[in-house]
Amino acid sequence: MLHPFDHPAVSRLILLALEEDLGRGDVTTLATVPPDREAAGRITAKADLTVAGLPLGERILKLLGATAGFRALVAEGSLVKRGEVVAELWGKAATLLVVERTLLNFLQRLSGVATLTRRFVDAVAGTSCKIIDTRKTLPGFRLLDKYAVTCGGGSNHRLGLDDGVLIKDNHIALCGGVGEAVRRARRHASALLRIEVECTNLVEVQEALEARADIILLDNMTTPQIREAVQLVRGRALVEASGNINIERVREVAETGVDFISVGALTHSAPAADLSMTITTRS
Amino acid sequence: MLHPFDHPAVSRLILLALEEDLGRGDVTTLATVPPDREAAGRITAKADLTVAGLPLGERILKLLGATAGFRALVAEGSLVKRGEVVAELWGKAATLLVVERTLLNFLQRLSGVATLTRRFVDAVAGTSCKIIDTRKTLPGFRLLDKYAVTCGGGSNHRLGLDDGVLIKDNHIALCGGVGEAVRRARRHASALLRIEVECTNLVEVQEALEARADIILLDNMTTPQIREAVQLVRGRALVEASGNINIERVREVAETGVDFISVGALTHSAPAADLSMTITTRS
Amino acid sequence: MLHPFDHPAVSRLILLALEEDLGRGDVTTLATVPPDREAAGRITAKADLTVAGLPLGERILKLLGATAGFRALVAEGSLVKRGEVVAELWGKAATLLVVERTLLNFLQRLSGVATLTRRFVDAVAGTSCKIIDTRKTLPGFRLLDKYAVTCGGGSNHRLGLDDGVLIKDNHIALCGGVGEAVRRARRHASALLRIEVECTNLVEVQEALEARADIILLDNMTTPQIREAVQLVRGRALVEASGNINIERVREVAETGVDFISVGALTHSAPAADLSMTITTRS
Amino acid sequence: MLHPFDHPAVSRLILLALEEDLGRGDVTTLATVPPDREAAGRITAKADLTVAGLPLGERILKLLGATAGFRALVAEGSLVKRGEVVAELWGKAATLLVVERTLLNFLQRLSGVATLTRRFVDAVAGTSCKIIDTRKTLPGFRLLDKYAVTCGGGSNHRLGLDDGVLIKDNHIALCGGVGEAVRRARRHASALLRIEVECTNLVEVQEALEARADIILLDNMTTPQIREAVQLVRGRALVEASGNINIERVREVAETGVDFISVGALTHSAPAADLSMTITTRS
Amino acid sequence: MLHPFDHPAVSRLILLALEEDLGRGDVTTLATVPPDREAAGRITAKADLTVAGLPLGERILKLLGATAGFRALVAEGSLVKRGEVVAELWGKAATLLVVERTLLNFLQRLSGVATLTRRFVDAVAGTSCKIIDTRKTLPGFRLLDKYAVTCGGGSNHRLGLDDGVLIKDNHIALCGGVGEAVRRARRHASALLRIEVECTNLVEVQEALEARADIILLDNMTTPQIREAVQLVRGRALVEASGNINIERVREVAETGVDFISVGALTHSAPAADLSMTITTRS
Amino acid sequence: MLHPFDHPAVSRLILLALEEDLGRGDVTTLATVPPDREAAGRITAKADLTVAGLPLGERILKLLGATAGFRALVAEGSLVKRGEVVAELWGKAATLLVVERTLLNFLQRLSGVATLTRRFVDAVAGTSCKIIDTRKTLPGFRLLDKYAVTCGGGSNHRLGLDDGVLIKDNHIALCGGVGEAVRRARRHASALLRIEVECTNLVEVQEALEARADIILLDNMTTPQIREAVQLVRGRALVEASGNINIERVREVAETGVDFISVGALTHSAPAADLSMTITTRS
Repeated sequence: MLHPFDHPAVSRLILLALEEDLGRGDVTTLATVPPDREAAGRITAKADLTVAGLPLGERILKLLGATAGFRALVAEGSLVKRGEVVAELWGKAATLLVVERTLLNFLQRLSGVATLTRRFVDAVAGTSCKIIDTRKTLPGFRLLDKYAVTCGGGSNHRLGLDDGVLIKDNHIALCGGVGEAVRRARRHASALLRIEVECTNLVEVQEALEARADIILLDNMTTPQIREAVQLVRGRALVEASGNINIERVREVAETGVDFISVGALTHSAPAADLSMTITTRS
Repeated sequence: MLHPFDHPAVSRLILLALEEDLGRGDVTTLATVPPDREAAGRITAKADLTVAGLPLGERILKLLGATAGFRALVAEGSLVKRGEVVAELWGKAATLLVVERTLLNFLQRLSGVATLTRRFVDAVAGTSCKIIDTRKTLPGFRLLDKYAVTCGGGSNHRLGLDDGVLIKDNHIALCGGVGEAVRRARRHASALLRIEVECTNLVEVQEALEARADIILLDNMTTPQIREAVQLVRGRALVEASGNINIERVREVAETGVDFISVGALTHSAPAADLSMTITTRS
Repeated sequence: MLHPFDHPAVSRLILLALEEDLGRGDVTTLATVPPDREAAGRITAKADLTVAGLPLGERILKLLGATAGFRALVAEGSLVKRGEVVAELWGKAATLLVVERTLLNFLQRLSGVATLTRRFVDAVAGTSCKIIDTRKTLPGFRLLDKYAVTCGGGSNHRLGLDDGVLIKDNHIALCGGVGEAVRRARRHASALLRIEVECTNLVEVQEALEARADIILLDNMTTPQIREAVQLVRGRALVEASGNINIERVREVAETGVDFISVGALTHSAPAADLSMTITTRS
Repeated sequence: MLHPFDHPAVSRLILLALEEDLGRGDVTTLATVPPDREAAGRITAKADLTVAGLPLGERILKLLGATAGFRALVAEGSLVKRGEVVAELWGKAATLLVVERTLLNFLQRLSGVATLTRRFVDAVAGTSCKIIDTRKTLPGFRLLDKYAVTCGGGSNHRLGLDDGVLIKDNHIALCGGVGEAVRRARRHASALLRIEVECTNLVEVQEALEARADIILLDNMTTPQIREAVQLVRGRALVEASGNINIERVREVAETGVDFISVGALTHSAPAADLSMTITTRS
Repeated sequence: MLHPFDHPAVSRLILLALEEDLGRGDVTTLATVPPDREAAGRITAKADLTVAGLPLGERILKLLGATAGFRALVAEGSLVKRGEVVAELWGKAATLLVVERTLLNFLQRLSGVATLTRRFVDAVAGTSCKIIDTRKTLPGFRLLDKYAVTCGGGSNHRLGLDDGVLIKDNHIALCGGVGEAVRRARRHASALLRIEVECTNLVEVQEALEARADIILLDNMTTPQIREAVQLVRGRALVEASGNINIERVREVAETGVDFISVGALTHSAPAADLSMTITTRS
Repeated sequence: MLHPFDHPAVSRLILLALEEDLGRGDVTTLATVPPDREAAGRITAKADLTVAGLPLGERILKLLGATAGFRALVAEGSLVKRGEVVAELWGKAATLLVVERTLLNFLQRLSGVATLTRRFVDAVAGTSCKIIDTRKTLPGFRLLDKYAVTCGGGSNHRLGLDDGVLIKDNHIALCGGVGEAVRRARRHASALLRIEVECTNLVEVQEALEARADIILLDNMTTPQIREAVQLVRGRALVEASGNINIERVREVAETGVDFISVGALTHSAPAADLSMTITTRS
C-alpha cells in the first residue's frame, strides 16, 4: 500500500477489469493458439505522448496469476515519440493475449491524463502557478487519475472528502454565506486541516479573508476579476482559480499571480493516449 | 443482475467510487451544514447532450445506505438541451453533498459516451450500417460503457473474451495466417459461437471466405479498399470496418455497404458530458 | 485465470470449502499430533476410475497458505486402476491432515464426473456424435464440472446464459412458437452467437429450419423420431439430442446421425469416484 | 445466520452459482422475451422424492436482487409424489428464466441428498440406531448437505474439524496407537468436546475403552465383528459403525446395537432428485 | 456511510465479530430453546458509566439478517447510573441469544472508552484545553474508538496517516532535525493540511517555530517544561502535550495553557464498562 | 489456516487495521523521508511484560505487500524486562513508518492480554485449577485474544457458540430450569459435545448433577459457596467458577478445588502492554 498502485482499491479495480474482460476464458486464443507457444510483446506509442501507468504491467500480471514478465523501457512521466517502444513483455502467448487489452486500456487512460496535464503544465511554465486536479476523476480511478496527473507534472488537490476542507457553492447556500461557512469550519473541523472556500466575486473574497480562510477558490471568474482578487488577497491566503480554464486561457490566468489553477478536464475529458501491443512468437 | 446496473461488477465499481471519495467522512459538510437540514437537489445539463446513467442514482443511494430519494425526469437516451433538469433528489443535505460528485462523475461519463455515440449514429442515418463499440472501454466500466453506447443508439460488439470468437492480428501472426486461424477456430471453438476474423487486405479476405469465416473485420483499410472488400464478400459473410474511422469519414464508410463500423473512441476518448447539481434547503 | 482452476470463481469455492471444514482449527490434530512432525501422503484409487482435478492439489495448498508439496503422478483424464497411486504430498503432518478431506472431496467429485462421462463417450465410440454436458452442474461447480467432462472425453455446451443462445420450452411458450422465437433471436442477439432452439416434434423442427436456426435440440424424442428429424434437417443445421438418454440407449441415439447428445446426469448425478489418502511419518 | 440458509457461507455459494450461470446476462431471454412480460412458474416433482431446500427460493431471489415472489407448497422433508407441485413463483418472465436453472440445481441436489437419506433411515426404522453423515460433503455444501440429511430424517456428525474430536487412522498411525492418541486428546483437547476414535479391530476397541474414549468408531468391520465390538463395549462408550455400509446391509448393522451408522454416500454420491420448472404468461 | 457506524469498515468488523462468535450456529440455544419462543431483552448498566455505541444495536441485527427490534432508551454520551436500563430488544429468543454477546462486547468497549474519556474531560473542565485521542486505537476499531472518545466529550486527533501531517521522533531522526523536517513537509505536503511536529525540548520548539510549524507537540515533558514551552510559543502555533499524562496530572498540564492534551490510554487501555443483558419470555 | 494467525478472519482484521490507518497514504512520511532511505527498527518493551503476537509482524508486512524483514528476538509467551528488545525490522524507512503503529497496536493488545493472564496464572500456581477465558473478547479479536491467553499460560474455554454447549442464565429462564435445560441439551445436541450448565446455588447444582451435566459453572458465588458446591459434586462433573473473580481473590477460589476459573477481564479489560519502536537509518 506504499505506492498508489499497491493500494487495495487499485487491486480491486484491476480485478474488476480482468474479470469483466476475461469472463470464463479467452475462447479465441484457446481455439487458435497452441497452449505452450512462448511469445514476446512490445508496447509501442502510436503518437507523441507522456507515459503513465507502466508499473501496472507487473501488478496486472500478478493479479492475473500469470508468470509472464514485464519490463518498462522508459521512466514514468517521460515524453515519448510516436513509434517508441515503452515496454516489453514475455511469456506464454495465451497470457499476453489475455492481458493485452486490459493493460492497454489502463495505459491509454493514464497516459492520456498525463499527456493532457503536461500540456497545461507546459503552458504555465515559468510562472509560479501550479496546475492541480479536481475530484472529477473517473469513478474507481481516484488514485490512478491523481497519480497520472503527477506524471504529467501537475499537483494534486485533496484526494477525497476527508483530507481537506473545501467549502463549495452548495455548502455556502445551505449555511448562509461565505463568512458564516468559514467560521463554522474553523470551529468544527480538525485542527490539522486548512480551510478553503469557493468565492464568486470580490465581496465574497473579502468576506472569506475576514473569516480568515486559508485558501480562496475563485470560481468561474474572468481573468481581470481574478487579477483583482489576487491583489485584494495580498498574500493573506493562497489563491486557486477554477472553472472552464482551457488550454488557450490557462497562461493568462497563471500570470495573474494565482497559486493554483484546477482543471477538471484533466481527468474527466482526457482522450486516450494511443498505444498498441504487438505479440510475436519467441524462438 | 437483470439490468446491467444490477450486475455485481457494477455494484463493486460503485462501492469503489463511493469509498474512494468519502474516505472516512465528508469533513466539510460535517463542519458547516447542520446534520438535520433537509435539502433538494437538481441535476441540470450544462450543454446539449444525450443522457445515460440516470438509474444509477437510485443504486448509488442504496449502496451508500442513504434514505434519500432520486427521480429521473427524462428517459435514458433522451437528447436534452442545455439548461434542462434531468433529475431531482431529496433528503438530508449531508447525503446529497456526499453523493453529488460520485453521481455526477458517473453521469458525466455515461452521458459523454452516449453523446459521442449519438453523433456517429446520426452520421450514418439512412444506411443499413450499425455503429458498434469495442473492448477499448475504461477498466471496470465494460458493462456501463457498453450500456451507454446503446443509449446513444449504437450496438454492442462482444462483451468480453468469452462471448465471441474474434481472431485478430496477433492471433494470426501466432498461428500462421488467416485461413489456418479460421480453420482452427471452427474446429475447436464452441458450436454456439460465430467466427470473426481480422483482415488487412483483399487476399486475406479471400482466404477468410474460403475458410468460411462468419464475419470479416476490415482493419485500417481506405474507403475504396473497404468498398472492394464488400463486393468481394458478396453477402457470404457479415462485414465490419474498423480502425481510425472518425466522425468526418464514418458516413462514406457506411455507404460502402459494410454491416458494422466499430469505433474505439466511443469509449476510450469520449469527453465528459457537462452536468451539475444544485442543492438547496427544502422547507 | 488462464486455466479454469485459476479463475477467481474457483478460488472462491476452494476457500469456502477450506473454511467450512476447518472452522477455527483442527482440534483433533492439534491435540494428538506433534506440530513439527513431517509426513508424506499418498492418494490412491480404490476403484478403476478416470482422474480429474489433480492440479487442484497445488491450488488448495496455496490458498490454505501451507508450504506443503504436491505432485500428480498421472495425467489428467488418465484411466487408473484400483490400487494405483495418483498423487503424493509432503509437508507437516498437520497440514496434510487439514487438507486431506477437502482435497479428496474435490478429487472424488471431479473424477466422478470424468468417470461417468468416459462411460458415455466410450459407448458412442466410432460414431461422429459428441457427448456434451448441460447447465445442470452443481451450484458453484460450473467451471470445475465442465472441465471434468472434458477430462472424460466429453465436450462442453455453453458455460452460462451469456455465451450462447439456447431457446428452450419456456421461452417458446412465452413468445408464441419456435419460428417466432428464432426470428426474434436472429434480430436481437449478438451477431457473434449462433442460435439453437429446442424442438419436441417434427413440425417444430421444420419451423426452426425455416426460421434458419443454426442448431436444433431434439428434446425427449424416441430414437425413431430422432432419426426422422436428422433426415429432415439434412445438414442444414447441427442437431443435438437431449432428455433421458441413459448409458443403455446412448449408442442407438448416436447412430441416428445427431451431432451432439447432451446428458444432464454427467454432472447432476455422477457418483463420487473412490479415492483415499494415507499419511505416514516421513523420516 | 440463524437458519443454516442465512449463514454467510451459503450466501457466498448462492452468489457464486448465480454469477457463474448468468455471466453478463441471459442473452436468449433478452432476445426473445418482452422485458415486461409477467409470468408464473411451478416447480414439479418428476419422480417420488423427499423435498429439501425450498427456503432457498426466497434467498436466491433476494441475492439476485429480484422482486419476484416464491412460495413453497410443501414442508421441508415432505415425501412428495411424482407430478406434485412443490413451489410456485411469480414475477417478470425474465427473472424466472434467470433463476430457473440455479434454483433447480440447488433443489435437485438437496432433495437428492434428502431422498437417499430417507431410504437409509427407513431401512433402520424400529431400531435405536441413527443414520448420520460424514465430512464427505461437496466442497462448499457442508451446511446445505448436512441440512438436507436432517430433512431426510438423518442426524449430523460433526460439522467440521473444530467441533468434535475424531481420531482417525492417519492420526493413530502418526502418534503410535489408539490408546496413546486418546490419552493425548484427553489431555490437550477442550473440556467441552467428547473424544471419538476409529478402531479397526477388537484389540483397538479394548485399548480405546481403557483410554476412556467417549465414542468408538468401528471402521470397515464385518457385521459379526461389529456385533462383537458392541458386546465388548457394553455401554461404556457410544458406538458408530462406518465404511461401505450400503442400503442392502444397513439394517443388519443397525440391529447389532450400534448407536450410529455413518454413510458417506448420503452426500458424496446422491443422485439428483428430478424436479423441473414450467413458466407461463400470467394474465 | 454518513454516520461512522455506516462506514463499510464498521460493517466489516461487525461481520467478523458475528461470524467468529456464531461459527456454524448456536448449538446451546438450538438444543434448549424452542425456535418460535418470542422474548424481550434489556441491557442494564452494572456500574455508573458513559454510554456509547447504542446505535450499533440496529446495525448488528441488520447484518445478522435478523428481524428483531432494538430501541435505545438513553442518548449517546449520557452518564447512566448503575442499574439503569439503557436499551431494549425484542424478537425470537434465539435471535437475542445469538446477538447478546457480540452486542455487549461492542457496547462494553465503546462505553469503556467513553467513560474513561469523560474522566479526563471532567478533570480539565473550566480550562480551554481539549482532551484528544491518538492512533493507539484497537486494530479495526479506529472509527469506533474515535467516535467513543467524542461521546465522552473528547475531540479527535487525525484519523489516520493521510489526513494530517504529524512529524514524529522517527521522522525527525531520519531527516536530520525538526527544522529540516518541517521545511520538507511545507514544501511537499498538500496545501490543505497543517503541519504538526513533535518536540522534546525548548531548542526544538524554537526550531519548529522558525520553520513555521502550525502545531507543536510537546512529547514527554514535565509540567514546568510544558509551561515554559507555551510561553515560548506565544500563540504563534497551537500546542499539544502528550506522553504519560495520567488522570492525576492532567489538570496541571491543562492549566499551563496548552491547546490539546492527547491521551493514548483513552483507547489502548480503557477497561470495559460493565453492562449485561437479561432475556425473558414475552407473552 | 493452521496457525491461528493464518486464519482468514485474522487476515481480514489485519487488513482492516492497515487500511483504516493508512487511508490513501502516509502523507507525513511522503513529505519528509526520502523514498529510498533504508532503515532498521527495534521494538522495545517499556515495562516488564509477557510477549504475545510477534508472529503477526511477518503477516502484517506480507498483507501490506511490503518487502521489509521482521525477526522476533524472544519466544512467544516470554516474560521480558523493561528495556529488552523483542523484535527487529529492516527495510525502507517508509515501510517501517507505515507499519509501526498497526504492529504496535496489535502487540500492545496481545501482550496486554498475555501479561494480565500471566498474573492470574501465577496467582494459582501449585493448585490444579486452570485459568480460562470467556467469550468477552474484543469484537474481531476472538482468535487473537484466545491465543494471547494461552501465551500467558491460560487455557481456552469454547471459541464460539458452536463448539461447546454452555447453558446460561438466559437459556435456563427461557426453558424452565436447570434440569430441563440439561435434559434438552442431552437429547438434541451433538453427541460430540459435552454439556455445561450455569448454576447460581446448590439446589441448581444438585439438579444439574441429576440431569448428568458434564461441567457445572458456578456463577457469582462466594468462596464458601463454591467450596460447598465442589464437595457436593464430588468429581461427578467438572467444576468452573466464574463471576468477578479478581486477582486478589483468585487463589482462594482455586484452592476450593474447582477445575477452572474463567475470568472475563483477561480479554475485556486488559490494559495495553507498553512497547515502542525506534527507527534509524541503516548504513
